[in-house]
Amino acid sequence: MDGEGGGGLKPMDSEQLREYGHQMVDFIADYYKNIENYPVLSQVEPGYLRKLLPDAAPNRPESLQNVLDDVQSKILPGVTHWQSPNFYAYYPSNSSVAGFLGEMLSAAINMVGFSWITSPAATELEMIVLDWLGKLLKLPQEFLSPGNCSGHGGGVIQGTASEAVLVVLLAARDKTLRRVGKSALGKLVVYGSDQTHSALQKACQIGGVHPENCRLLKTDSSTNYALPPEIVSEAISHDISIGLIPFFLCGTVGTTSSATVDPLYSLGKIAKSNDMWFHVDAAYAGSACICPEYRKYLDGVEEADSFNMNAHKWFLTNFDCSTLWVKDRNALIQSLSTNPEFLKNKASQANLVVDYKDWQIPLGRRFRSLKLWMVLRLYGVENLQHYLRNHIELAKYFEECVGQDSRFEGLCVRTLQVVAPRLFALVCFRLLPPVGDNEVCRSNKLNQVLLEAVNSTGKLFISHTALSGMYTLRFAVGAPLTERRHIAAAWKVLQDEASTLLGAPLQDNGNPS
Amino acid sequence: MDGEGGGGLKPMDSEQLREYGHQMVDFIADYYKNIENYPVLSQVEPGYLRKLLPDAAPNRPESLQNVLDDVQSKILPGVTHWQSPNFYAYYPSNSSVAGFLGEMLSAAINMVGFSWITSPAATELEMIVLDWLGKLLKLPQEFLSPGNCSGHGGGVIQGTASEAVLVVLLAARDKTLRRVGKSALGKLVVYGSDQTHSALQKACQIGGVHPENCRLLKTDSSTNYALPPEIVSEAISHDISIGLIPFFLCGTVGTTSSATVDPLYSLGKIAKSNDMWFHVDAAYAGSACICPEYRKYLDGVEEADSFNMNAHKWFLTNFDCSTLWVKDRNALIQSLSTNPEFLKNKASQANLVVDYKDWQIPLGRRFRSLKLWMVLRLYGVENLQHYLRNHIELAKYFEECVGQDSRFEGLCVRTLQVVAPRLFALVCFRLLPPVGDNEVCRSNKLNQVLLEAVNSTGKLFISHTALSGMYTLRFAVGAPLTERRHIAAAWKVLQDEASTLLGAPLQDNGNPS
Repeated sequence: MDGEGGGGLKPMDSEQLREYGHQMVDFIADYYKNIENYPVLSQVEPGYLRKLLPDAAPNRPESLQNVLDDVQSKILPGVTHWQSPNFYAYYPSNSSVAGFLGEMLSAAINMVGFSWITSPAATELEMIVLDWLGKLLKLPQEFLSPGNCSGHGGGVIQGTASEAVLVVLLAARDKTLRRVGKSALGKLVVYGSDQTHSALQKACQIGGVHPENCRLLKTDSSTNYALPPEIVSEAISHDISIGLIPFFLCGTVGTTSSATVDPLYSLGKIAKSNDMWFHVDAAYAGSACICPEYRKYLDGVEEADSFNMNAHKWFLTNFDCSTLWVKDRNALIQSLSTNPEFLKNKASQANLVVDYKDWQIPLGRRFRSLKLWMVLRLYGVENLQHYLRNHIELAKYFEECVGQDSRFEGLCVRTLQVVAPRLFALVCFRLLPPVGDNEVCRSNKLNQVLLEAVNSTGKLFISHTALSGMYTLRFAVGAPLTERRHIAAAWKVLQDEASTLLGAPLQDNGNPS
Repeated sequence: MDGEGGGGLKPMDSEQLREYGHQMVDFIADYYKNIENYPVLSQVEPGYLRKLLPDAAPNRPESLQNVLDDVQSKILPGVTHWQSPNFYAYYPSNSSVAGFLGEMLSAAINMVGFSWITSPAATELEMIVLDWLGKLLKLPQEFLSPGNCSGHGGGVIQGTASEAVLVVLLAARDKTLRRVGKSALGKLVVYGSDQTHSALQKACQIGGVHPENCRLLKTDSSTNYALPPEIVSEAISHDISIGLIPFFLCGTVGTTSSATVDPLYSLGKIAKSNDMWFHVDAAYAGSACICPEYRKYLDGVEEADSFNMNAHKWFLTNFDCSTLWVKDRNALIQSLSTNPEFLKNKASQANLVVDYKDWQIPLGRRFRSLKLWMVLRLYGVENLQHYLRNHIELAKYFEECVGQDSRFEGLCVRTLQVVAPRLFALVCFRLLPPVGDNEVCRSNKLNQVLLEAVNSTGKLFISHTALSGMYTLRFAVGAPLTERRHIAAAWKVLQDEASTLLGAPLQDNGNPS
């Protein structure tokens, strides 16, 4: 920072923090004010930034203004604007004023909360706020902290749903191995569907579960891509009959591809009767279940051993904040605890406190509960319910638009019968090939070309998936700034690009002529 | 937020962000202004917070002022102030104005950078800044991005050193299993010392390496607790002779207990000649190695397969920012990649870009390179070197104070011969028992009582470890606000508490009478 010699660096001077902090707040507020002016999907080419920056760190300090100028001219063009009202790709990653303030405060306190003693408030606020959220979701009592019931449950904030499924898979693995002997690792089997998030497969890779023992059971449009319990039962029976050991089943509420809901109750019963751990991944759709009319999608969660929802997706809590509840905290702790001398302290040794280091992969952890606490307090439950319902209404509006254009397959099941019905704020749809052309490859290519055309306008960003092998477009409403006018404009772009595409008939090679 | 009905929630209104953001900046600047007024170690009792907060989230919004009042009166008393100039426990977790601004910007952009396309700038800035830092550390070329050489290396920001050692252990595990067959998992052996961070043991637990195959080889004061290469060679030879498969060796630059440096070059040679992965954990002391006079402690890193340093410890970059370099990125990717349809995109499929999701445990990731980039630019290399040297000078000053008080064992090796020499900014020391009393238990208890007495004053916070079974006090200089006057005051508290303790002779039960 200009004017400071090597001998005078004050890296945490409160008045410099005040001055530069205000400058940064204005920079950020201006970013949000102008966010619609940026292309949603960054249009840069791979390697663009290396050409713009020096190849070594500067010896002497630079001014904040220089850095902010570079952010504006060099960094922001390479940003894909997840907070743009025109962002409909993947699932959302909500930022909010409350979440942002929580991040600021957490960064300022900058403590490392591995053990209770390293900042009691961080551990205790996390327990309290996860109880708050657990109650909003009407989770069974056994998932709440013992302060609320006589169980051994509790909530914890993980970085991501990937880490959530990993830690419970490890807990389940070790619990099973304690029963059957550790040499049986190669016989352990995991079950999910081909719609289960890829994080399950990655957790298996990490935990040493053999890849061929990770059963991603096939789903199709007959169950709207939900996992049929009878298929799970059959797979388990078969595996047992050949000497394998089923130990983990993952159900999803709001799958990544089409926001399908697996039949939790039946899956949970199957898991229980086979001594398996049942994990429910509601990373995306869990948020909506704080509204009474959507709570039904969690029915059956009482059969689960663990439950996960990402507050950083659709719940206005800046990334990262993935909330996980377990019924048996000891299973987690047995898998993940270490107790080196340098971390020993009275409160921990006396077993009076929770040390979250033993509930997660890393040792260190940020004060993430602050932002979730601020979201809940600054907005209140009623506002949050309204916020979620509003996005679902907007998605319904988009779905109606699609339904009124006969060139698209949307709400109504059409020729190709792949498009899943909308349950939350994700709409799956496809551009239909010209009448008479049912060749799958060309039809897939058509939609891929449409997606690329739309995204390269910079006016909106959508993503895709494959359902029954068909390339399907995903329009996920969920950015905090999205209003009805944005949906209307997005639909107009989609229609225009479709017209251009269909006006130029496809050649045999699948490319527009 | 007051005055907003359920129908009007604007959770990301730019003008509200501006107003509330400014309010939060002032709150935070005031926190830093007054930080010395808080007890460093929180003095609350377990469960204190639940009594102060309601047991459910509010239905209606609350005002920011209400929440900030609660932060002041309910949260801050439960915070252990890692940013206090009087924080000497564990290793530091630096906050700085630059790091804080980077966190603000990252929280504002709030993108999820799993793939290049989800924000090209996030991936590319991370590659560039890790090259910058790698060059400052004079890491071998093979650790830098291929833009810098013809290799397959590169840097990546992990959350913590625990995740860093985990991902490379998994890469090494799978590389070895591809060679010897996956059924050999139970035969794989890991080597470190009893001073290696507990993260190694945890990584073994997670990765399915048998706990009894995790060799934490014994060290003692004869090598200042560094790992003797000949002990490693012997252990490896023995394990091979009984049919086990050595695959991973971890060396440390700056151990947690006493900041010892393992002999990297010799360890690396041993690893190489046994086809093992050699990881160097310089989480703490790596920072100092940007100063030419400390670079020698990294000599031998050219033999390593991976190298880790925590910029969030002593490098002014707010938590979390753990920088990891590998020579063979493909080994990481082979262990950690998934490629679901919904994440496919042109740039990734064409192999033109880095997708950091395949270099780490989670899928999602924050824009963490921003804060490291801002630290390097706003301070510049010379200032950073000065900052590190200044802390080392302050530690030397503390060490001299200890050396001048004959009641303490410090710099000079004394009767008990456990205290390690100071290399960086950590001083290990002990209060000596009264002359003639060499009973270990009482001597350990004496130091434990001293630690608790000192920490409960709230005037400073120190931690402890065990060296050769002796309870040893740790005084780690490294908080950005620490000045010479703080060290002097801390030493005065230690001396006073020691006087009180020694004035009250210990009873046979080890407690002061």
